[in-house]
Amino acid sequence: MTILPNFLKKRAFLTPDRMALEMNNKCLTFAQLYKQSVIFARKLASTGIKKGDTVSIFMSNSIELVTIIFALKNLGAITVLHNLRLTTKELSFQLEDAGSQLLLIDHCSENSLRQQVNIPILSNLELANLKEMELCELLEEVNLNDTDTIMYTSGTTGFPKGVKQTYGNHFWSATGSALNMGLHQEDCWLLAVPIFHISGLSILMRSVIYGMKILIHKRFDAATVHQDLMTKEVTIISVVTAMLNGLLAELGSGTYPPSFRCMLVGGGTVPKSILSECKSKNIPVYQTYGMTETCSQIVTLSPDSALLKLGSAGKPLYPNQLKIMKEKQEASSYEIGEIVVKGPNVTPGYFNRTDATLAAIQDGWLYTGDLGYLDEEGFLYVVDRRSDLIISGGENIYPAEIEAAILSHPFIEEAGVTGMMDEKWGQVPIGFFVIKQGKTVEKEQLIEHLHEQLAKYKVPKQFYSVSSLPKNASNKLLRRKLLDFLPKEGDDEHTES
Amino acid sequence: MTILPNFLKKRAFLTPDRMALEMNNKCLTFAQLYKQSVIFARKLASTGIKKGDTVSIFMSNSIELVTIIFALKNLGAITVLHNLRLTTKELSFQLEDAGSQLLLIDHCSENSLRQQVNIPILSNLELANLKEMELCELLEEVNLNDTDTIMYTSGTTGFPKGVKQTYGNHFWSATGSALNMGLHQEDCWLLAVPIFHISGLSILMRSVIYGMKILIHKRFDAATVHQDLMTKEVTIISVVTAMLNGLLAELGSGTYPPSFRCMLVGGGTVPKSILSECKSKNIPVYQTYGMTETCSQIVTLSPDSALLKLGSAGKPLYPNQLKIMKEKQEASSYEIGEIVVKGPNVTPGYFNRTDATLAAIQDGWLYTGDLGYLDEEGFLYVVDRRSDLIISGGENIYPAEIEAAILSHPFIEEAGVTGMMDEKWGQVPIGFFVIKQGKTVEKEQLIEHLHEQLAKYKVPKQFYSVSSLPKNASNKLLRRKLLDFLPKEGDDEHTES
Repeated sequence: MTILPNFLKKRAFLTPDRMALEMNNKCLTFAQLYKQSVIFARKLASTGIKKGDTVSIFMSNSIELVTIIFALKNLGAITVLHNLRLTTKELSFQLEDAGSQLLLIDHCSENSLRQQVNIPILSNLELANLKEMELCELLEEVNLNDTDTIMYTSGTTGFPKGVKQTYGNHFWSATGSALNMGLHQEDCWLLAVPIFHISGLSILMRSVIYGMKILIHKRFDAATVHQDLMTKEVTIISVVTAMLNGLLAELGSGTYPPSFRCMLVGGGTVPKSILSECKSKNIPVYQTYGMTETCSQIVTLSPDSALLKLGSAGKPLYPNQLKIMKEKQEASSYEIGEIVVKGPNVTPGYFNRTDATLAAIQDGWLYTGDLGYLDEEGFLYVVDRRSDLIISGGENIYPAEIEAAILSHPFIEEAGVTGMMDEKWGQVPIGFFVIKQGKTVEKEQLIEHLHEQLAKYKVPKQFYSVSSLPKNASNKLLRRKLLDFLPKEGDDEHTES
Repeated sequence: MTILPNFLKKRAFLTPDRMALEMNNKCLTFAQLYKQSVIFARKLASTGIKKGDTVSIFMSNSIELVTIIFALKNLGAITVLHNLRLTTKELSFQLEDAGSQLLLIDHCSENSLRQQVNIPILSNLELANLKEMELCELLEEVNLNDTDTIMYTSGTTGFPKGVKQTYGNHFWSATGSALNMGLHQEDCWLLAVPIFHISGLSILMRSVIYGMKILIHKRFDAATVHQDLMTKEVTIISVVTAMLNGLLAELGSGTYPPSFRCMLVGGGTVPKSILSECKSKNIPVYQTYGMTETCSQIVTLSPDSALLKLGSAGKPLYPNQLKIMKEKQEASSYEIGEIVVKGPNVTPGYFNRTDATLAAIQDGWLYTGDLGYLDEEGFLYVVDRRSDLIISGGENIYPAEIEAAILSHPFIEEAGVTGMMDEKWGQVPIGFFVIKQGKTVEKEQLIEHLHEQLAKYKVPKQFYSVSSLPKNASNKLLRRKLLDFLPKEGDDEHTES
């Protein structure tokens, strides 16, 4: 059992006047951020929230969001961060699954949310207007084994599972990253990915643990992010390939200021052509592999190896171990198998899902479901994400979840979803379905049906009505083979959504 | 239970070709150091040493010592590091207390040692000549709760106690230091303190955890250390005040290269005059407070506060908590009490000393026995060792403060102050001093010098000029023994003030 002081309180004590964050030209020091987080903790306490309670957040990046996240830590509440793109139906499932007592939303959120969610809801404005409860106990210290945050991922079963992220997971993730990239007093990390994703939240945690300024953007916009990279002494940024593409277009023939030291690229392999372009522009690209379950990066490739080890995600960070398992044996170099990882940044498991946890984590090793191999020096090459995972613009899409939604249409017999390469998004989902005998289904109507249930990015971009789906002997859908159904050049049978 | 990979093996895997250490112009990369440590692990295994065994080391700083330390970690043996200044009798006590199975010594050690110690002894040369055991199991990973090293504390009362230092203690100590001082790829730490002290061993551990080069000296010699600081791109050095004094003399009117970024000064308060001199020479002094039980630094003052907070040891590092206890209550600002600390770098306790452990550590808080206070911003001021407190006429007098005042006299080399029974006042302070070679000091003039700086009750009532002060093996002043210097009845050598 390892105990540390309250992360933000300790940071505010050590470096009260150092800048914590900047957003829309508003700045907060660590002392100011902590003070605000205490005020909001007292307001939250007045609604009855206390240590051990679960509170859900459905908000976009903002100083208010950051303040609320640390306010909940001050109370010792568990924070569930939901993807803002979820439909109300998806959100409701997660709220119920997590047993959340309160949902915090942006004050500009749609009113319909309030009618469809059956737990108390507060917008950030309503929360700000509450009175502070003076006599509430604020956490002085944290047990690293305690769950801090929960984020949902879907996985192969289709039903989203809540990934528990402990205080220790966050601390060790920050430590592993610092031991790889170093820690400079003048560091400033630009945060333009969603805080409801681990890629965003982990930057926030590093800020507090390192005492490092972060520059927050509401969302990624290539032009404004580029402008900040050029003028605001940013030293590090986290992006996915699509963002990097946008930034390269903005940069043109220019170069970044010399203080810019790290372009951390996650969410899938970076194409060679882009790496070469970065090299020619002296952009320090760190390719990385990680997931919600590993609390951000677990394998990272430093720039000096970026072109030598083209396509590699690097070596596991200092606190981490990695092996490739093939038929229950550790694979040799270059042999493809399942990527299995271990370390103190790896989740203790899924919330209220003992079976899923036991299936995924054995002896402390997390079976990622992703496929890859190691070269003779131990560099990891990720071959494919969880057999079926589709990564589209940095968002994870799980085919089984989409298939379940398609199947909920009363006239559809079978459904299959897979990913297709896309220049802009990396991958996009495409759907295949078999109509029940004697029925007809209009694709437009199916798309509408899906939009009611799924976040927009999950809705397949193309649909194909087929007579049967490819299956193996055990009658299991072979999603890879779905691509063989695609019309050949000259065909014109499909509908794009 | 937190598991990390074998520290050195992992480092050698991540950055095999990075320089690990240099000594006497011999350099080793991390890959080479790890390879050597494996060879020596196999040689040690051939003597029967295995996981969980205890092995003692009585050696001066050398590459062989470093190799052996990591060889023992490869086997999972517990390493006891003994102070080289111990008498054979003191060493024998510690060997027996720790239950050591083997004693490793420098091949140049005195032969008499072999006759007086009754466990197997091997010199580094003898060890090097052993055959390697091929089939021995090397540790792939470590449990952070496991004891890694044991060091004996000099302890002002009773028998020396073995302080257990776990893998976690070492890791967290390195983490806390990095979060305070930053982590630069070009860092190089000069190690001229004994590795058998935590000040030296902790540099070794940081080297492996950070992937940082260290430059090892057999012992501190101001001239050669100065030369390396000026020419070898050293960025950090650990010293005590006496070493700093020596370095300042060498530096003269010069300045260190701009890459030199940290002069970490431990082992007691740094006199104001020295701090000012450092300031005028742009020397980045980090004052620090720590002990064997905290696995090195636990409180550190950064250079930007060094003169603003003159005499302070700083704030507790990120993973640490600190409070001042007075009569079982937490003291207010400026109230002197016992310094009590907590954090994952704090020892789990003393080896085989349940009572001493229970007395020192309560609820995870270590009662240091040192006296200090916090200012209103939470900066720690270490006042003195509790056992040395002099109470005179109801006033508390702290010897260290008086000694610093005596030392500020330009012709005085060393000073010691203790309390003597007094009919009128209960106790009065008396002072002892060593005059610099070739100088003379009139006692009246010294007294006048002190009256300028100290309240009257603090000025020692008697002074004794002596040729040396009583110290223990760790070169720590034994104030109690000062009383033995007092003239016997009939002598008439002292001056009363």
